Amino acid sequence: MDQIEIKKLLENVAKGEISVEDALFKMKMQPFEEIEGMAVLDSHRGVRQGMSEVIYGAGKTPEQIDTIAHALYGGGQKTVLITRMSREAADYFHKDIPFTYHPDARIGIAGEKSEVKYSGTILVATGGTSDIPVAEEAAITAEVFGNKVKRLYDVGVAGIHRLLSHSEDIMNANVIIAIAGMEGALASVIGGLADCPVIAVPTSVGYGTALGGVTALLSMLNSCASGVSVVNIDNGFGAGYLASMINRMGEK
Amino acid sequence: MDQIEIKKLLENVAKGEISVEDALFKMKMQPFEEIEGMAVLDSHRGVRQGMSEVIYGAGKTPEQIDTIAHALYGGGQKTVLITRMSREAADYFHKDIPFTYHPDARIGIAGEKSEVKYSGTILVATGGTSDIPVAEEAAITAEVFGNKVKRLYDVGVAGIHRLLSHSEDIMNANVIIAIAGMEGALASVIGGLADCPVIAVPTSVGYGTALGGVTALLSMLNSCASGVSVVNIDNGFGAGYLASMINRMGEK
Amino acid sequence: MDQIEIKKLLENVAKGEISVEDALFKMKMQPFEEIEGMAVLDSHRGVRQGMSEVIYGAGKTPEQIDTIAHALYGGGQKTVLITRMSREAADYFHKDIPFTYHPDARIGIAGEKSEVKYSGTILVATGGTSDIPVAEEAAITAEVFGNKVKRLYDVGVAGIHRLLSHSEDIMNANVIIAIAGMEGALASVIGGLADCPVIAVPTSVGYGTALGGVTALLSMLNSCASGVSVVNIDNGFGAGYLASMINRMGEK
Amino acid sequence: MDQIEIKKLLENVAKGEISVEDALFKMKMQPFEEIEGMAVLDSHRGVRQGMSEVIYGAGKTPEQIDTIAHALYGGGQKTVLITRMSREAADYFHKDIPFTYHPDARIGIAGEKSEVKYSGTILVATGGTSDIPVAEEAAITAEVFGNKVKRLYDVGVAGIHRLLSHSEDIMNANVIIAIAGMEGALASVIGGLADCPVIAVPTSVGYGTALGGVTALLSMLNSCASGVSVVNIDNGFGAGYLASMINRMGEK
Amino acid sequence: MDQIEIKKLLENVAKGEISVEDALFKMKMQPFEEIEGMAVLDSHRGVRQGMSEVIYGAGKTPEQIDTIAHALYGGGQKTVLITRMSREAADYFHKDIPFTYHPDARIGIAGEKSEVKYSGTILVATGGTSDIPVAEEAAITAEVFGNKVKRLYDVGVAGIHRLLSHSEDIMNANVIIAIAGMEGALASVIGGLADCPVIAVPTSVGYGTALGGVTALLSMLNSCASGVSVVNIDNGFGAGYLASMINRMGEK
Amino acid sequence: MDQIEIKKLLENVAKGEISVEDALFKMKMQPFEEIEGMAVLDSHRGVRQGMSEVIYGAGKTPEQIDTIAHALYGGGQKTVLITRMSREAADYFHKDIPFTYHPDARIGIAGEKSEVKYSGTILVATGGTSDIPVAEEAAITAEVFGNKVKRLYDVGVAGIHRLLSHSEDIMNANVIIAIAGMEGALASVIGGLADCPVIAVPTSVGYGTALGGVTALLSMLNSCASGVSVVNIDNGFGAGYLASMINRMGEK
Amino acid sequence: MDQIEIKKLLENVAKGEISVEDALFKMKMQPFEEIEGMAVLDSHRGVRQGMSEVIYGAGKTPEQIDTIAHALYGGGQKTVLITRMSREAADYFHKDIPFTYHPDARIGIAGEKSEVKYSGTILVATGGTSDIPVAEEAAITAEVFGNKVKRLYDVGVAGIHRLLSHSEDIMNANVIIAIAGMEGALASVIGGLADCPVIAVPTSVGYGTALGGVTALLSMLNSCASGVSVVNIDNGFGAGYLASMINRMGEK
Amino acid sequence: MDQIEIKKLLENVAKGEISVEDALFKMKMQPFEEIEGMAVLDSHRGVRQGMSEVIYGAGKTPEQIDTIAHALYGGGQKTVLITRMSREAADYFHKDIPFTYHPDARIGIAGEKSEVKYSGTILVATGGTSDIPVAEEAAITAEVFGNKVKRLYDVGVAGIHRLLSHSEDIMNANVIIAIAGMEGALASVIGGLADCPVIAVPTSVGYGTALGGVTALLSMLNSCASGVSVVNIDNGFGAGYLASMINRMGEK
Repeated sequence: MDQIEIKKLLENVAKGEISVEDALFKMKMQPFEEIEGMAVLDSHRGVRQGMSEVIYGAGKTPEQIDTIAHALYGGGQKTVLITRMSREAADYFHKDIPFTYHPDARIGIAGEKSEVKYSGTILVATGGTSDIPVAEEAAITAEVFGNKVKRLYDVGVAGIHRLLSHSEDIMNANVIIAIAGMEGALASVIGGLADCPVIAVPTSVGYGTALGGVTALLSMLNSCASGVSVVNIDNGFGAGYLASMINRMGEK
Repeated sequence: MDQIEIKKLLENVAKGEISVEDALFKMKMQPFEEIEGMAVLDSHRGVRQGMSEVIYGAGKTPEQIDTIAHALYGGGQKTVLITRMSREAADYFHKDIPFTYHPDARIGIAGEKSEVKYSGTILVATGGTSDIPVAEEAAITAEVFGNKVKRLYDVGVAGIHRLLSHSEDIMNANVIIAIAGMEGALASVIGGLADCPVIAVPTSVGYGTALGGVTALLSMLNSCASGVSVVNIDNGFGAGYLASMINRMGEK
Repeated sequence: MDQIEIKKLLENVAKGEISVEDALFKMKMQPFEEIEGMAVLDSHRGVRQGMSEVIYGAGKTPEQIDTIAHALYGGGQKTVLITRMSREAADYFHKDIPFTYHPDARIGIAGEKSEVKYSGTILVATGGTSDIPVAEEAAITAEVFGNKVKRLYDVGVAGIHRLLSHSEDIMNANVIIAIAGMEGALASVIGGLADCPVIAVPTSVGYGTALGGVTALLSMLNSCASGVSVVNIDNGFGAGYLASMINRMGEK
Repeated sequence: MDQIEIKKLLENVAKGEISVEDALFKMKMQPFEEIEGMAVLDSHRGVRQGMSEVIYGAGKTPEQIDTIAHALYGGGQKTVLITRMSREAADYFHKDIPFTYHPDARIGIAGEKSEVKYSGTILVATGGTSDIPVAEEAAITAEVFGNKVKRLYDVGVAGIHRLLSHSEDIMNANVIIAIAGMEGALASVIGGLADCPVIAVPTSVGYGTALGGVTALLSMLNSCASGVSVVNIDNGFGAGYLASMINRMGEK
Repeated sequence: MDQIEIKKLLENVAKGEISVEDALFKMKMQPFEEIEGMAVLDSHRGVRQGMSEVIYGAGKTPEQIDTIAHALYGGGQKTVLITRMSREAADYFHKDIPFTYHPDARIGIAGEKSEVKYSGTILVATGGTSDIPVAEEAAITAEVFGNKVKRLYDVGVAGIHRLLSHSEDIMNANVIIAIAGMEGALASVIGGLADCPVIAVPTSVGYGTALGGVTALLSMLNSCASGVSVVNIDNGFGAGYLASMINRMGEK
Repeated sequence: MDQIEIKKLLENVAKGEISVEDALFKMKMQPFEEIEGMAVLDSHRGVRQGMSEVIYGAGKTPEQIDTIAHALYGGGQKTVLITRMSREAADYFHKDIPFTYHPDARIGIAGEKSEVKYSGTILVATGGTSDIPVAEEAAITAEVFGNKVKRLYDVGVAGIHRLLSHSEDIMNANVIIAIAGMEGALASVIGGLADCPVIAVPTSVGYGTALGGVTALLSMLNSCASGVSVVNIDNGFGAGYLASMINRMGEK
Repeated sequence: MDQIEIKKLLENVAKGEISVEDALFKMKMQPFEEIEGMAVLDSHRGVRQGMSEVIYGAGKTPEQIDTIAHALYGGGQKTVLITRMSREAADYFHKDIPFTYHPDARIGIAGEKSEVKYSGTILVATGGTSDIPVAEEAAITAEVFGNKVKRLYDVGVAGIHRLLSHSEDIMNANVIIAIAGMEGALASVIGGLADCPVIAVPTSVGYGTALGGVTALLSMLNSCASGVSVVNIDNGFGAGYLASMINRMGEK
Repeated sequence: MDQIEIKKLLENVAKGEISVEDALFKMKMQPFEEIEGMAVLDSHRGVRQGMSEVIYGAGKTPEQIDTIAHALYGGGQKTVLITRMSREAADYFHKDIPFTYHPDARIGIAGEKSEVKYSGTILVATGGTSDIPVAEEAAITAEVFGNKVKRLYDVGVAGIHRLLSHSEDIMNANVIIAIAGMEGALASVIGGLADCPVIAVPTSVGYGTALGGVTALLSMLNSCASGVSVVNIDNGFGAGYLASMINRMGEK
């Protein structure tokens, strides 16, 4: 129940069109509508800001994903992003609505193609080729939310020239997502070159003391460059979502 | 060797005042001057963007801090931020230039007061009172870089109403810095309420299994809310710097 | 040697039917029978308190589970709870006695349905849908031991209003079991709202730095709310058992 | 704003005594008063339940502690518990109100002595003598909240008979707080003997692989006995508070 | 080259049956035969002490195990113990020599049955039934080396009376192997009851914070009882071998 | 209630001086007196076996240590070992009874010098000179319990010949205590040379990745040599006590 | 833009064939071509030094490996090393160019056999037989880069004589690669015997507290012998590559 | 007993000048003399190779250091390196022999200045200024062993141009020691630029998740560049020693 609805209710009480008891009941029945209203704003937020509802596919059955996605699409959401979606769930998905599946990124997109809404560019860079699935999750997420994305893959610091030869891209980006496993040094080097926020994504790429991404995570948290923050291991979606949030600010 | 120097060199070659061989030698001898030039841009970047040079005081002697700060100020930087500055270093500091010391935040500011440059607000929230020193490091850093800062201290999730009663501040912020030790749940709850980027700062507050901030860090990295990223334990400066970078984008 | 046996022995000594020496020898030979007797009391304890014997199914063969459960039922225990029971073991189970299987919770119940014995309510809340199997293990355990259970699933703190809209349930509970993976913040928020004991159950839900539940565990141990204690990762049974123990106290 | 206040407001609107705009403003101005009201209940809760406000002394100056404690006492709270209070803070404390200091437990109590309110007994047991400070923090906390406390110190499992000779105490307790460092086996053994909730408190007692209490914590979380839950390392207060909450249930 | 061989060589030199050069060459060719001799003693040691050569089956092919075992048996070793032997390797084994396979303990024994050589008893105790495979590895190893073994399974501390009812066995043992997963408290309780060396074996039994046996290991290393030492997680063979070494001392 | 008391009780029952009910009650009231009796045996055990009571000095005040030691000595114990005794406690100690203090090992010995009781030798070896305090704790403990001790210090594996040149000592020992920090390889090498039990003691010697002894501990637990078991980091006393237990077996 | 190109550009400026502005633009447009040129040197480096390009097979499809290897061979590289190559990829590989596959080491070699280029010997030693796959990865890598390799397998420190009997090999090596799992003591012992650089490779061989190679790693990092450095767990290739780099120095 | 001595002994046996029994006894009595001889070579090794004996000052008293250093100098060693030497020990040192103390590196040098023996250069690079003490330990160690050292301090990757502007130094070095704390990315970037062995030294510089150097260590072990190996945290001496060993090879 938002302010306008409350105002109407109060006016109706003033006009005698609704009894005090009924009005009380209505408000009692929705005691958290102010908060619920906040939640409504919350769900409106997506539409207003292009941050539409996202389905986290892991731990959901193909049937559940299919049902929720169709419900969201049916409910007016133009594009529905499904992350961590298995091939099996993608195969099961009823294709009566537009649907694309990105097997590398394990992302499904139901509904219309999203359009570019923001002028700034999000740069997605990876240390190696094995980091690409996480990078694609980030890049596609950002694209679905209306961002231009520039991909810069396999520019790890062991051959620093590969990275430096793209310094113009780094300079021109509004936000950079730096994705790396192993020692995760990419985030520090990019952080030192860039003058925009850098979101570092450690990946579980590597073996032995890579510790499933913990080494890259620790490395990124200790970046000697300023302007770098970190998300969970392999969390491409989180990085893409946050990058979109930041990029959107440039439009205000 | 910056563009102007290269241009001069080329002009001299064109005029025949320097031989091709000598010019080549000069460029060969300084093969990285273009990069050095980039470094010049780099140091210019601060001035241009309000991201002036910062002195990390830890591990530096009072003499060193004093010398560097005076040199930067003498070199034209209007405001010099000194983080992790000990009381001893602050006492030693030669007060022939304006100087303020914030003992809680262990921050010293030499030079002129910085003015507010950006219209957006950075909200700095803490879970408890023990997190305030880290919060002040973040808040003062953001202020020095020209941001309006709103402080919201001791709004930990154990009494969720304290936090909710400030939801307007949360809604109005451009960037939020959520600072908490112990279980670090503040970042998730704020992340769920806000529609702007949230920078989570774990603090070393707590005992036993707080593990010196590692628990809060892990908690924040696993936030179930989107739009949250994390910096190192107790890294108030890093959060303030990044928040300023993001807030600046709203001005473009 | 239980009290009845000791009494008989003493009577025989009194009657002169057994010599002091022989009686002494008998007691000496079984110096721990009193303790063995305590064990008898121990096993009686379950019957008296509704805490009937439970079969931990993990690491037991379908045959073993079947045999033990039938033995317990045959021995007079009205309801036999079998936790961590595989689908295979459930299929194998001889259905000559009443039997229900809950595949999500991996719980089997042999024997009669348990009745509600206590007036208080145990609230079982989860942060997400992936935590439900652990929650069901807790909830069904509590029900088998005679408790009323109220389920509140998917009320994670990222959308705090979902949780707050159920604050009446939280206020009315006698004991709350708060189950969450990832950052485990649910326990702190509920702990701040409730005025009854909160048993926190970390789950292995999440990826990367969720560390298989360790992050949620650490978070819960550091809860800034008082009245919260923690059990092992994914230990729904333990939480349900303890909750029942506490709820029973309200009946005394 | 509770239901009665809302009803009155609505009646006033119906009567025309307050304009729709003013009513709307009032509700808008206090959008979180329902929650704020819950918070009021929250602060009332203490008075109603004997769970009076507690001051966590760590990280607070002697002046701050003194001020807060006097304010609470002045505000009508009969007994003010101050945990983790340094000797220095105790010396500083203005003795114009009754005050006792327990140096071992680092607890200060300002105000009247608390009376026993509940008939059940809380048993506080420790593995060794070095665990006693944590035990006293738990015991005194429980006493301040109106509980009878039975202390059973230095009954570690290495001499199991010491523990067993007190099995009557174990059997008679309503709640048991089992406190141990090193290998923390006390919780399991007591858990196996008792038929009431056991709150396990790992302590930082030990050296080398005791890992500052982590070993005892892990051990307690893996207790093979049911009915055991765990709080943070050295968290005597948390255990005493929770034990009081549980013990209170027996009075309902 | 052992002492007897060296003596013979020297005698042959003395007799002139072998030239100094040839003798030197023979010794030069085997410059570490003294050490090699020590090794010979080493391999003799087994025969003399009943510590015959053991084949560690993990990482060896069925063919390799078969070949080595037959070679050892052919070379005069009466009993060949094969640990961590897969069912597949056992099936493959050529049964032209006596062979027994213990699937639980994953132990194969080729050759004659070993006889009891020492009068003392080794007690093998486990906390639960899931620890039995490790216990059998320890017990069978000890038996193969000529020890009498008493098994005491499923006497975990959660039901302390089960353990205490066997205190006579504990008092009578020469060495005790205490095997437990989860919180590993068995070692401490037995260590407190026994007056003989206790070898603690943590097992990987448990889930969540059992951490694959690390919790039990840490617990055992911090045993508050004296006389307890620890071997690697699940290392039943190591415990059986060491127990045999200690038990043998009673025979000297 | 010991056997004599039980016998008396039975006689009284036989004589009719006490009723069956009263006798039963008496036994019921003291169900653990047999265990209490076992505890008596337990405390006798020390005297009988030369394992006299030991005072663990850490966490005890000089006064407490002084009082307990005098009480034990006064109570008939000829030698009282005090481990982890500070210099301060040693200075405080009342010298009205014989007293020696070993500052390196932080051991105090009150009472008579202990005599050698066992013919076997315990070898105490260290990797470096920094391990000597732990080694002395082990060696003196073993001596106090009546063992002959041979010290072999600074024979770390980096200069393997130093160790090998003492192989006769290794061969002749009944038990070996191998003490090392850093990589702890000494235990493996000695374990490979010896044919007696080896007790490995990791020390906290080293820096960085020595992790305060954890590295040496892990190394020792994974020793490729059989017959090696491990005690807690820096636990010289535990090793000396266990070594004495094993050495004593050779005397039976 | 390499030196030759820059020289030409300068000559054109001198000749007036290109304007200063155009030349400046050209250099500005390719500010990293000098670095790109360095990259060219980088790729030349392999040819010049015998460090030809290597394909890391993990995470690459059989098709990708096949294509890259043929491209490198077609591009003039005589020998192409493929590490972590699956059997499947080896089977897929088009045999129109010479190809050998080492299943143990999971290494494929496409192209000509490499010749020995350096006179020094690299010694590859392992603690056990299970370490051999890692050792072969190291040994074959070193051979492909033109080194003589001496293999010394299964010389673990538990039987120190096995290692010592090969001390001549240790003395004669130019570089030693010491490979071991479990407690990793081999590196220390070899480091103490050798007077050349020792590259230690921890392996994931072992169970329980071997922690997947972390124990061996920690042990090797804390080697009490000087001249030892460490690479990642199971990183045979890295050790072989580095050993070759060091061995090559002896040829200068 | 070397080959010549053995030959003589055999000749004497052949001549009958020594009985077989006496010869056998002589060989039995000194079974490790060959190894002892090797040890002699070992101690000669230092003199021959310039790797003179080093005193590790940590854990040694000023007196001990003074005595050993004078003994070594008196025994003919020209230069004695003392690492981890406290200021106090340096002050105590008797200056009757030449002595220099480097307080930053905590290194003392007794005796003559060492001369440059090898033509190659060792480059010592650090990420920040706080790493300099470790770097100086490495650099001075290398200089004492006769190497030319080039220092390159504060060239961390956050400002990659600082490092790149010194690429000539990197290209010209024979060995590089890369020293960094925090995220330790320096090793990877240098490893990618250099074509010589890189010894990475993690330092304990940093806070929070720097984990006392563990993060830098893990990062360096996972370097995506080949040719990088790692030593213990803060182990400047080890790196300097190993670098000298490698550099020496270029002289052969």
